[in-house]
Amino acid sequence: MPETRLDLARIRAARQVIDPVFLDTPLYRCEALEPVLGCAVSIKLETANPVRSFKGRGTEVVADGLAGAVVCASAGNLGQALAWSGRRRGLDVTVVASRHATPAKLERIRALGARLELVDGDHELARERAVAIARRDGIRLVEDSLDLETCEGAATIGLELADAGTAFDAVLIALGGGAMATGVGHVLRALAPGTEVLCVQPAGAPAMTRSWHARRVITTGPTHTIADGVAGRRPIPEVLADLLLVADDAVLVSEASIVAGVRLLFEHAGLVAEPSAALGIAAVLEAPDRFAGRHVVTIVCGGNVDPAAFRGWLA
Amino acid sequence: MPETRLDLARIRAARQVIDPVFLDTPLYRCEALEPVLGCAVSIKLETANPVRSFKGRGTEVVADGLAGAVVCASAGNLGQALAWSGRRRGLDVTVVASRHATPAKLERIRALGARLELVDGDHELARERAVAIARRDGIRLVEDSLDLETCEGAATIGLELADAGTAFDAVLIALGGGAMATGVGHVLRALAPGTEVLCVQPAGAPAMTRSWHARRVITTGPTHTIADGVAGRRPIPEVLADLLLVADDAVLVSEASIVAGVRLLFEHAGLVAEPSAALGIAAVLEAPDRFAGRHVVTIVCGGNVDPAAFRGWLA
Repeated sequence: MPETRLDLARIRAARQVIDPVFLDTPLYRCEALEPVLGCAVSIKLETANPVRSFKGRGTEVVADGLAGAVVCASAGNLGQALAWSGRRRGLDVTVVASRHATPAKLERIRALGARLELVDGDHELARERAVAIARRDGIRLVEDSLDLETCEGAATIGLELADAGTAFDAVLIALGGGAMATGVGHVLRALAPGTEVLCVQPAGAPAMTRSWHARRVITTGPTHTIADGVAGRRPIPEVLADLLLVADDAVLVSEASIVAGVRLLFEHAGLVAEPSAALGIAAVLEAPDRFAGRHVVTIVCGGNVDPAAFRGWLA
Repeated sequence: MPETRLDLARIRAARQVIDPVFLDTPLYRCEALEPVLGCAVSIKLETANPVRSFKGRGTEVVADGLAGAVVCASAGNLGQALAWSGRRRGLDVTVVASRHATPAKLERIRALGARLELVDGDHELARERAVAIARRDGIRLVEDSLDLETCEGAATIGLELADAGTAFDAVLIALGGGAMATGVGHVLRALAPGTEVLCVQPAGAPAMTRSWHARRVITTGPTHTIADGVAGRRPIPEVLADLLLVADDAVLVSEASIVAGVRLLFEHAGLVAEPSAALGIAAVLEAPDRFAGRHVVTIVCGGNVDPAAFRGWLA
């Protein structure tokens, strides 16, 4: 059992407070992708729910038992999920996001009744602003990946993979702040130690991957990626420490491979995946020999795209 | 309890023989669609499985306990599902399809190891050819909608809707041969009698809808619709008799509304739906007053599209 901040009993308990609409998501072989990728491919689909991403798993745990007001910074998916979880519990939700975030995500955050505050800068500035709001108003700050609820909520995906009865050779996990990677990684280390835990990040937003390889926090300058969901620059030390215990590897992929991954998931799997959700496919495209003949499972973690941008990626 | 050919106990038993990968599919509110449609909308998603349609529910029941060889006519989805269910049980599967069927569907049937025989004509000619093959070779003929297994397999969707704990005002069901409509309708009549059972068919392939209104089988000339999954011309008398007992209404929608439905499901729900799977949305678009303020659930029954055609519908 890895000595991370996470706890298997708490992860199992988390399933009890998460709305079932986010749990037991589809997990299936996608043979149509296999000739292209040269390996057996299963998909864990996290987009068929009211917020179209896996983030509801975490925000349900966060919001459970909370009262009053809550604030988070978000690239768009956490904010939607927190707005959804908060609304049904009568919480007053504020989401801070970059003015450059995907418009479709911002629109949904507003539609779900949250107060949306935009900052003129990137996600790191939004994080700073959320901290300031929490201090000023004395309200709960939700920090993605740092708050254990976000990791342990995401970790319930790992329970479902471990319970699937399939011995996957590798799980491909989008790496951003690290909640999903540490969560799923923790569970698989404990329950499916034969499965390689492989994190994938865009080369244009490489901070956590570089940090993992250096075994210390490395921050970077501005990010350049269409995978907006994972575009952080300042890894959180506690999360890196956990990731060092549970990940077998962390790799970077190009923007071209991410677009190719989005396109393959559309053409061969009939899925609308946002770029962050195509990172796993991108990793296979960039290192086919590494995966040849193996059985990988990739978590398609979100599907919130701007329709026009998506059409552009397919063109 | 409606006196159809179907039986609730057998439908419940069907769940036991269907591979779980086809069961307990996502069911969720899709609020992003609601401002456009003017009613509460839930989606029952049948595309996130190895054959990207609901047909696996039926073919799993068909194939259970079968040995040897089996043949069916298919517009593409039944054939894929029968090929999938047959392969894992060592059956020798032949699928007869129109040469004009969606190429992506034909390709998947072949990839799943079935023998594919193409006819120079429409789906009705494929049905005749499948009958001839079954007679010639003395093998099992699977007739979609006539064979109870196909109806009772599809009917398990109804069980999941009835068990959802939501009192839907109406369920919108794509109407083709009638397996899904009679199956889901039978279950809801029995377990959720307050839910309106509404069948939707393209105006370009109206045979079963016209028959339902006339209360007798009406055949039609050539069909003209992009909703290839429901383009039959010769309703089966036994299926019509069942449909008369369980459907509250059957409506026809235009091709323009079907395309608009496909587009809305992409733009607001992030789904790749084939035209047959967008019929429910099309029905709401054509009669907004009928649904205003109500809560409808639409079964997104398949997602096998040709990528190029799909891009065209979004353009």
